[in-house]
Amino acid sequence: MEFRLKEAAESLAATPTAVDALLRNRPEAWLECSNGEGTFTPRDVLGHLIFAEMTDWIPRARHILEGDGAVPFAPFDRVGHRPLIEGRPIGELLDRFAALRRENVAILRAFHLGEAQLEMTGTHPELGPVTLRQLLATWVVHDLGHIAQLLRILAHEYRDEIGPWRQFVTIVG
Amino acid sequence: MEFRLKEAAESLAATPTAVDALLRNRPEAWLECSNGEGTFTPRDVLGHLIFAEMTDWIPRARHILEGDGAVPFAPFDRVGHRPLIEGRPIGELLDRFAALRRENVAILRAFHLGEAQLEMTGTHPELGPVTLRQLLATWVVHDLGHIAQLLRILAHEYRDEIGPWRQFVTIVG
Repeated sequence: MEFRLKEAAESLAATPTAVDALLRNRPEAWLECSNGEGTFTPRDVLGHLIFAEMTDWIPRARHILEGDGAVPFAPFDRVGHRPLIEGRPIGELLDRFAALRRENVAILRAFHLGEAQLEMTGTHPELGPVTLRQLLATWVVHDLGHIAQLLRILAHEYRDEIGPWRQFVTIVG
Repeated sequence: MEFRLKEAAESLAATPTAVDALLRNRPEAWLECSNGEGTFTPRDVLGHLIFAEMTDWIPRARHILEGDGAVPFAPFDRVGHRPLIEGRPIGELLDRFAALRRENVAILRAFHLGEAQLEMTGTHPELGPVTLRQLLATWVVHDLGHIAQLLRILAHEYRDEIGPWRQFVTIVG
């Protein structure tokens, strides 16, 4: 399927509702579990999404639109979210993500991007040249990937509770 | 993590909101895509969830609770959802799933299941003996697995749109 800005913006706008449904009423133990030492907990995933709203997508889009495409993006800090989530209740983090996303989707729409702008390029510090269109498509897919990650982490916790169904249910890992 | 009925019921109750957020405003082309010939589209996944509400979880729980545990469950029909989704708008299907799930979670809570009942067994036509607890835990995990499937199908459609990020983003397949 071809990237379309309007569809991408709708997908981005819907993400906080999906994440909220999956996390808001989870017991604390489920929010603190992970699929193994050093891997993300659901709370980490949410923190990572918040941190990317603050430092990745819109800042990188602006960097491209301001004509600085030849200057590599600042590298993304994969553990930069940690101080943001430390001791914060999940409801507060969900509200924060929703507010940041709402603001960023409004900024995206207000750019009124045309084809020429979507073809403008930036420089990823590891991947090299990327277009604004690819950056925005990746924002959408990054959401979907991290919601799927949340689901895998949550499902994994019930791996011993489903008994013989484990052979049918691949998500528990 | 140990299965707890209250937590399981909350997880089940939240699923329609997550699915709704992911599908309601998707363009028709995105709802009809799949990861390959013969695999589920997002609309199929939703139909499958609806059909399982009608024929799987609560009917099987009742079958166990009514003392028919030695009689195998009716096999689940993996394509039984097809007539249900044929030509139906996505909003209608989402509303239907939400209504069925609301009703089934209310039934589940009204069972007021205790430990002894959770240990009652049924007979799965392929897997053999299963407990009511395992059936209910599988209901929860089945939701999470199918939401993750939705995400994979949706993300896969943007696989060519994310350019070089494809090497970082594993969900696009």
